[in-house]
Amino acid sequence: MKREQLTEKILDIKREKGWTWKYITDEIGGMSPVLVVGALLGQMKLVKPLAKAAAELFGLSEQEERMLNEVPYRGMPMPPTDPLIYRFYEMVMVNGPAWKALIEEEFGDGIMSAIDFDIDISRQENPKGDRVKMTFTGKFLPYKYYGAEQGTPEYGFKEA
Amino acid sequence: MKREQLTEKILDIKREKGWTWKYITDEIGGMSPVLVVGALLGQMKLVKPLAKAAAELFGLSEQEERMLNEVPYRGMPMPPTDPLIYRFYEMVMVNGPAWKALIEEEFGDGIMSAIDFDIDISRQENPKGDRVKMTFTGKFLPYKYYGAEQGTPEYGFKEA
Amino acid sequence: MKREQLTEKILDIKREKGWTWKYITDEIGGMSPVLVVGALLGQMKLVKPLAKAAAELFGLSEQEERMLNEVPYRGMPMPPTDPLIYRFYEMVMVNGPAWKALIEEEFGDGIMSAIDFDIDISRQENPKGDRVKMTFTGKFLPYKYYGAEQGTPEYGFKEA
Amino acid sequence: MKREQLTEKILDIKREKGWTWKYITDEIGGMSPVLVVGALLGQMKLVKPLAKAAAELFGLSEQEERMLNEVPYRGMPMPPTDPLIYRFYEMVMVNGPAWKALIEEEFGDGIMSAIDFDIDISRQENPKGDRVKMTFTGKFLPYKYYGAEQGTPEYGFKEA
Amino acid sequence: MKREQLTEKILDIKREKGWTWKYITDEIGGMSPVLVVGALLGQMKLVKPLAKAAAELFGLSEQEERMLNEVPYRGMPMPPTDPLIYRFYEMVMVNGPAWKALIEEEFGDGIMSAIDFDIDISRQENPKGDRVKMTFTGKFLPYKYYGAEQGTPEYGFKEA
Amino acid sequence: MKREQLTEKILDIKREKGWTWKYITDEIGGMSPVLVVGALLGQMKLVKPLAKAAAELFGLSEQEERMLNEVPYRGMPMPPTDPLIYRFYEMVMVNGPAWKALIEEEFGDGIMSAIDFDIDISRQENPKGDRVKMTFTGKFLPYKYYGAEQGTPEYGFKEA
Amino acid sequence: MKREQLTEKILDIKREKGWTWKYITDEIGGMSPVLVVGALLGQMKLVKPLAKAAAELFGLSEQEERMLNEVPYRGMPMPPTDPLIYRFYEMVMVNGPAWKALIEEEFGDGIMSAIDFDIDISRQENPKGDRVKMTFTGKFLPYKYYGAEQGTPEYGFKEA
Amino acid sequence: MKREQLTEKILDIKREKGWTWKYITDEIGGMSPVLVVGALLGQMKLVKPLAKAAAELFGLSEQEERMLNEVPYRGMPMPPTDPLIYRFYEMVMVNGPAWKALIEEEFGDGIMSAIDFDIDISRQENPKGDRVKMTFTGKFLPYKYYGAEQGTPEYGFKEA
Amino acid sequence: MKREQLTEKILDIKREKGWTWKYITDEIGGMSPVLVVGALLGQMKLVKPLAKAAAELFGLSEQEERMLNEVPYRGMPMPPTDPLIYRFYEMVMVNGPAWKALIEEEFGDGIMSAIDFDIDISRQENPKGDRVKMTFTGKFLPYKYYGAEQGTPEYGFKEA
Amino acid sequence: MKREQLTEKILDIKREKGWTWKYITDEIGGMSPVLVVGALLGQMKLVKPLAKAAAELFGLSEQEERMLNEVPYRGMPMPPTDPLIYRFYEMVMVNGPAWKALIEEEFGDGIMSAIDFDIDISRQENPKGDRVKMTFTGKFLPYKYYGAEQGTPEYGFKEA
Repeated sequence: MKREQLTEKILDIKREKGWTWKYITDEIGGMSPVLVVGALLGQMKLVKPLAKAAAELFGLSEQEERMLNEVPYRGMPMPPTDPLIYRFYEMVMVNGPAWKALIEEEFGDGIMSAIDFDIDISRQENPKGDRVKMTFTGKFLPYKYYGAEQGTPEYGFKEA
Repeated sequence: MKREQLTEKILDIKREKGWTWKYITDEIGGMSPVLVVGALLGQMKLVKPLAKAAAELFGLSEQEERMLNEVPYRGMPMPPTDPLIYRFYEMVMVNGPAWKALIEEEFGDGIMSAIDFDIDISRQENPKGDRVKMTFTGKFLPYKYYGAEQGTPEYGFKEA
Repeated sequence: MKREQLTEKILDIKREKGWTWKYITDEIGGMSPVLVVGALLGQMKLVKPLAKAAAELFGLSEQEERMLNEVPYRGMPMPPTDPLIYRFYEMVMVNGPAWKALIEEEFGDGIMSAIDFDIDISRQENPKGDRVKMTFTGKFLPYKYYGAEQGTPEYGFKEA
Repeated sequence: MKREQLTEKILDIKREKGWTWKYITDEIGGMSPVLVVGALLGQMKLVKPLAKAAAELFGLSEQEERMLNEVPYRGMPMPPTDPLIYRFYEMVMVNGPAWKALIEEEFGDGIMSAIDFDIDISRQENPKGDRVKMTFTGKFLPYKYYGAEQGTPEYGFKEA
Repeated sequence: MKREQLTEKILDIKREKGWTWKYITDEIGGMSPVLVVGALLGQMKLVKPLAKAAAELFGLSEQEERMLNEVPYRGMPMPPTDPLIYRFYEMVMVNGPAWKALIEEEFGDGIMSAIDFDIDISRQENPKGDRVKMTFTGKFLPYKYYGAEQGTPEYGFKEA
Repeated sequence: MKREQLTEKILDIKREKGWTWKYITDEIGGMSPVLVVGALLGQMKLVKPLAKAAAELFGLSEQEERMLNEVPYRGMPMPPTDPLIYRFYEMVMVNGPAWKALIEEEFGDGIMSAIDFDIDISRQENPKGDRVKMTFTGKFLPYKYYGAEQGTPEYGFKEA
Repeated sequence: MKREQLTEKILDIKREKGWTWKYITDEIGGMSPVLVVGALLGQMKLVKPLAKAAAELFGLSEQEERMLNEVPYRGMPMPPTDPLIYRFYEMVMVNGPAWKALIEEEFGDGIMSAIDFDIDISRQENPKGDRVKMTFTGKFLPYKYYGAEQGTPEYGFKEA
Repeated sequence: MKREQLTEKILDIKREKGWTWKYITDEIGGMSPVLVVGALLGQMKLVKPLAKAAAELFGLSEQEERMLNEVPYRGMPMPPTDPLIYRFYEMVMVNGPAWKALIEEEFGDGIMSAIDFDIDISRQENPKGDRVKMTFTGKFLPYKYYGAEQGTPEYGFKEA
Repeated sequence: MKREQLTEKILDIKREKGWTWKYITDEIGGMSPVLVVGALLGQMKLVKPLAKAAAELFGLSEQEERMLNEVPYRGMPMPPTDPLIYRFYEMVMVNGPAWKALIEEEFGDGIMSAIDFDIDISRQENPKGDRVKMTFTGKFLPYKYYGAEQGTPEYGFKEA
Repeated sequence: MKREQLTEKILDIKREKGWTWKYITDEIGGMSPVLVVGALLGQMKLVKPLAKAAAELFGLSEQEERMLNEVPYRGMPMPPTDPLIYRFYEMVMVNGPAWKALIEEEFGDGIMSAIDFDIDISRQENPKGDRVKMTFTGKFLPYKYYGAEQGTPEYGFKEA
């Protein structure tokens, strides 16, 4: 059994039942809908109680329930050809250099974690046309300047 | 003169003067620092008053000021090899399918605009380590179902 | 069930019945043949009444009808190897820079939407050989210059 | 001298003079602005009288005038990272299969020429936001079914 | 049914019967063996009488016969790894610039059509080793310089 | 000095003098214009007497003359974006499988040489539009089935 | 039936029987083990007597025997990810320029044939660790300088 | 000034002086030689005191010293063609799946940080040939299961 | 049977039995868990006694046991999209140049073997968050400077 | 100074002096011409006495002499477009699987080293056309099966 076969089965059941993702994530609960949908689409792991809830909802076998609890091989081919996903890719491609400049100036040398982060998606009503609002917060991780002498701070030197 | 030569010159002056991006964007003002920095790095256009302010700040020629007012050829090579920018790319690659599912369920068939959108970057203090907070809002643009008969709504049919 | 399996089934039925696309899109109706054919080939969504009409025409199951109503993962591999599609790709590759220059001069900084647009294909009779005529209109979307001070227009500054 | 050096020089003069493309193409005249701008950007050839007019307008040397009269090595790297050009690329990527199906049904086995074709770009006023209108007509070229016996039409068989 | 499945079936029958391509194209007749073999390998369309002849020869179903009459999605992955096909690719790669220079000097700005062209393959006996002789003729298509004023020739200006 | 610098210099002189390729290849003579033009564009070697003739014609230094006599690093980036060269690439991409089938059936397992071959380009007058005629002959090279026992033919077995 | 299915079947039988390649190539005989193994892995053609011997050894059907006698579509994806094959790829990548310089100096403008060549692999005992010894001999093919005047040697000029 | 120009200058001075990396990193001190060499090669930032020490050692301008203190755009083209670097790439390519399985089983869903990590390179003497010893330690970062209800641990659920 | 089918079967059994990799590698024993897991995932060969132990544990057929004893075609597609594996790839991409500089200075011209090497993965407890510790030792292989005169050391010259 | 600039200078001097590679490698001596030419083309390191000899021959500066003694970043872009180098690439692509099968059967799991190897190129006279003979010997490196219990051989188990 491959993870994509499980995803296809889950989508078949969702279609047959006429369920929405909202219904599904409300039933499974426990963490952000972005993560739960991600797991059902084969990109995230569901922890055991959620895998159990998902298995009950979709009528999955014990094997399939366990597979939902496994960490998948994450990622999809890039560049994305689908317009909705491409727009996010384009934002990174066009704005990446400015984000890098501003984040490094504010936080120092490091990155915004793509592991210890959260995303919230919501609708922002607007008379000119509603807007999609996405909020990300990611832990800032400073580059470790290892090998420093004793007595210096873990991440190297304090910039004066 | 090429846009990257202007970018290199601006970065040379910034380095020589010891200016921060904050100082520069405060001086130029007028719109989001993300856009102003993006323009100085060659990814955005500065409207005339801002191009003028930038030219005064950096002591640019009239030719260079006009170039800042031009729309550049946007984008950078992908995948990004720089870790800070890659993390954003990875977020799209791992979460793209879930975003697509959730946005389409909430808004219908369409995209979140990468043109009519705004970004805000801020620091979120956190005892476990400060976090980078990024907020995007983009206008939802529904796919136009053109060619519909008279009397039906512009974007096609109301889903019942 | 995958969308390409449904496309293959639809093409098998079309072949078996000896139907033309014209016959099919007349039967399904409701919006542009470009969109309806696109949906049957797995690139567009059919709204519910059209999915129903398509399902009746092709004798599809309820599951398959619902799949036609889903937004597919759009796009195909590029560059296209097929000569007919490649010629369009080449037009973009050769003329893209001129289109960019002329559209930006006329409309300002922004894009022609690939979402809110329509296409019409027709035959233009010509004694030297008939011509394919394609007409596109797409909404112009100006880049939003966000973060502007209060009182300035939403899309930033008026160019003087 | 390379063609891109000439393009850079022309853009420098345009910027210095503060000319628009409309002014330039009106001055040079003779054929579609899409072609004239394309030639100045290094993608098209200007026939001799137009190359002369362009050389006079920009004060080019005789060598440069002759280069404008040469057929350049056409094309740009794909996929385009610039959003304006990408949208056209996306239209081909998403709609290509439907265009192929509809054009082949209407015209038979062949292509719409990317050589014997014309493009017109105009503004279409619209209270919901003006639209970019692009009209293409390209000669339909049927695949030649060569090697047919004497007495059969040049392009093979008449489909019954 | 996919076109490659039909190709595989045809090759299986050819192998089982021990037929040569010569025998097959003689039986089907009607146009160049290059085109008929191309169609049986999934790269060309067979017009109706030839599709019928092929179906009879191979004992194909009516569905399969109709598929042979459809225009396939043409092309194969490049660069070709097979040595025989790679040599042609290399000829283009090494000689392309010279062909471009010589054809444009002789014919003007345009292309040799890859649609309205024919190919003949034959054996040229030679005491030092026989040679493969391939003859191509393709219609020269001049770039259309559209938008020219009234009274000028369709393809722009006569070069003096 | 790099070969592309020499090519650029030669093209500058050709443009300045207003020479055609025909004039140039007539002056240099000695072998096919395809090869001579190829050498001047940096894809072929000119043997000594021709390099000398070319150097005299273009007024090259002794160093440059010697460079023309060197074997260059052949080839150009693929796929070609220029329409004229792309059409040849497309012919290989679409017809390659049929050529392979027919050549192997006629000649056996092997290739048509891309080294021991010749090309002739000419104009074929035609009332419907002149045609480009290209004739290739390449030595057929059979795959060597080495390691065969004594007494068997060098290229392996005679097919019975 | 596809060639890779036949390869898979042959490997299954080899594994089941516990045969070595040495045993197999001794049984089939007739030419170099490199070629016979290459054919069984889908990269070479077996001439009829060898295909027959292979079919008898593996208990193949007549169809499968004939397929072994066909010329396959040769080649595998590059760069090779397997370390053993990658090392050869690396040798070409690192040493290619030096081989080109030395072969061209010794033999003139041309190539070492990859068609009319042979390979021998053997073990070279060595107290510091045995070595793999590979010997290639390939016919040198000089570039044909076609179009030369009468009376000059076929391959162009004698370098003085 | 571009970072690669500074790198080239530093390598020129190193070569001229005949310095070793050991000498250089001893002089600059302060943190791991891997980081200091990385910074001098344009992949890392030197904190201010180290940038100062480096500038003094190499006799750099104040501008160049400041550039060493900037975060560069990190990364190099992949796959690496250089054998020494390729071997590391190959280790990831061949062993990546096993590392993923073992790290996830031991640590849970997450990654080994490439930011908060350190590397030590040393020589391991060995009578059969000395060995390169590389030790990495990277902080394990668990995937954050955000959106969990109040009262659950930050990183989601405890696996039972 | 393909190796990936065997891998899939092994993972299905592992999931069904609820076994950990630790349990599996303890049962099979004999060499590093990295290698054993690598073999079960299709990247390494298990020597005969280990293949036998694995076959007994998983209840595999004799055919499958033999397949585990075969050397697979190693490697996976790169760049890795999975975040855990990507981080290692990034370490090579960012640190490769510094490793090359330091290893070559210490050991001379050569590589750290990716064949004669070993890896150890362990947990390093740390109050700020546990760390993954990976230790590699690889034999240093000096480039052989072959063709040296008699009497010089095998690997060429002693650097003075 | 970059290595390719030095290569260009060396080639300019070689051309000016009219030297052959044979003359150059005889003058420099010390190791295989393949390595010496490789070093002069920027792919290999010359040990000190050879770098000195090369510097004297070419009249290089001390800086340039030292650069020849440095290990370059090895490798060139692949696939090679030059026909001479491509043929070697093709040999790997077509024969790689058979080489892997035969080498692994003879030597076990491992590789033929691309570091500890030597190449010899010579002319093999042949009445049908001289042949290029290339002989490689590379040390066989067995995969190390590390982590084995005490008492077992270093490279794992003896296959019975």
